Amino acid sequence: MNDHELFRSALASRAALIEAHLDRTLSTRPANGEFARPERLVAAMRHAVLNGGKRLRPFLVMEVSALLGGRDEAAIGPAAALECIHCYSLVHDDLPAMDDDALRRGQPTVHIAFDEATAILAGDALLTLAFDLAVSGDPEGDDGRCRNLVALLARAAGFGGMAGGQMLDLVHERMAADGETITAIHAMKTGALIRAACEAGAIVAGDRERARMHRFGEIVGLAFQLADDLLDVTADSETMGKATGKDAAAGKKTLVAMHGVDWARERLDAYVREAEELLAPFGDRAAVLRGAARFIADRSS
Amino acid sequence: MNDHELFRSALASRAALIEAHLDRTLSTRPANGEFARPERLVAAMRHAVLNGGKRLRPFLVMEVSALLGGRDEAAIGPAAALECIHCYSLVHDDLPAMDDDALRRGQPTVHIAFDEATAILAGDALLTLAFDLAVSGDPEGDDGRCRNLVALLARAAGFGGMAGGQMLDLVHERMAADGETITAIHAMKTGALIRAACEAGAIVAGDRERARMHRFGEIVGLAFQLADDLLDVTADSETMGKATGKDAAAGKKTLVAMHGVDWARERLDAYVREAEELLAPFGDRAAVLRGAARFIADRSS
Repeated sequence: MNDHELFRSALASRAALIEAHLDRTLSTRPANGEFARPERLVAAMRHAVLNGGKRLRPFLVMEVSALLGGRDEAAIGPAAALECIHCYSLVHDDLPAMDDDALRRGQPTVHIAFDEATAILAGDALLTLAFDLAVSGDPEGDDGRCRNLVALLARAAGFGGMAGGQMLDLVHERMAADGETITAIHAMKTGALIRAACEAGAIVAGDRERARMHRFGEIVGLAFQLADDLLDVTADSETMGKATGKDAAAGKKTLVAMHGVDWARERLDAYVREAEELLAPFGDRAAVLRGAARFIADRSS
Repeated sequence: MNDHELFRSALASRAALIEAHLDRTLSTRPANGEFARPERLVAAMRHAVLNGGKRLRPFLVMEVSALLGGRDEAAIGPAAALECIHCYSLVHDDLPAMDDDALRRGQPTVHIAFDEATAILAGDALLTLAFDLAVSGDPEGDDGRCRNLVALLARAAGFGGMAGGQMLDLVHERMAADGETITAIHAMKTGALIRAACEAGAIVAGDRERARMHRFGEIVGLAFQLADDLLDVTADSETMGKATGKDAAAGKKTLVAMHGVDWARERLDAYVREAEELLAPFGDRAAVLRGAARFIADRSS
């Protein structure tokens, strides 16, 4: 199998593991130290999470960890945590006061399917659950990594990361944003969490190759966002499952709008080359992650 | 000094420490691994936190820890975390889609002072920051407690705790709620976090006396809520700084409404007696916490 096939196979395999883990986790049965979880809230959280997502971030956690010698049993909790953080951010981003989206992946968003209060709480609860997942599930693991992992996730998701990026995005929505601001917004709003997924894998595997995986994750995040922007310009609603052309219609600036499609494609190629250089020392063992980097840069949906 | 004076003095002292810690934390200067934090978001978070709160929960963390031999340097991060979780919950509870409050402690709520999107993000960011604070700031501490502490906070705040309680409260708002449901709502919405503050102090001090402090925290939480309900019936708006009689006007059931003022006062006395029994083995050293239990049960604001 070539890199792409290995990637596809690994992604499917990891997604199935994560799906099962999240399905078991998002039940009304309380964990140790909890009260019974309200059914409506669990239902809303399930709607937000068990919806056919690609599970890219948990995939990255698990594959980076595996590449560096980490155990799957130690990686799955942190991987599930990344997915919960990602899903919480989508629930809140979709709220009427925020991006006000009624559809996501072709399905009604949580505040539409349930109600706004439930959506706010579902997002809150998913973010909170993420930290439980990040530290649970592997009692034999080295607790010394706990601090590093929790701090990593909190800083990638918080006011100096994803939440801060969303704030900047809202502030600049109807204002002229220069290239530097757009880059910052993307790095925080989207890039931080993707980078954190890769670093989390490194921490789980014993806090090894942190700097390498920080850069790899950064590159993957940049490629992800740029490919996303390129897609918005070129794809149609049927492929995307949500309103496209929305960015352009809202007058939202993107790097593709500023520099053009050819520039974007060249940048994406450069990102993939750098990702391959970062993975070079691992030889064939890094085939899945090489395939992932290429897929993210080239994806058509 | 008697218990009450010792309590007052300790509360003021702990509040000052926490205030300074939160003031330093809530700055635009990024921590290691973060991007620059947007000014507006930091301002909103500061509005939500640096507002004259009593800091009861962080006080409990620090005093329980101190009683059990824990170091202040190890307790302050977790203490600040509890306050951030508490403040995030108030920001989101006040939102239009939730309890829709324009005032808190006599000041405009975050969505009024800023805007709704900023308030949603400020709450999100405070919840996220809490986990960073819980695990940072004391690099010499025993990392083995990290997992226990993070899991404790997540479970107390999440869908099996505080967020779940808020969900139940919203679901039952306009429906007849029996005594069992009201008790469950309070235990989750208010009690879980107060209990967690006490347990966090025990974990910080070396995971000692966990069961005792679990029960002590549970009692304090019950007393806190019951005293709050009693206050709503007996106080006026000037004392409270927010609209009172609101519960009754909304037809909201409380245990005081169901069982009466005399019943409530007897229950509160019983809670204080049990708290004192739980603290008895510590003798004079537990004076501050005894004073705290009595204050919480008797408070007039």
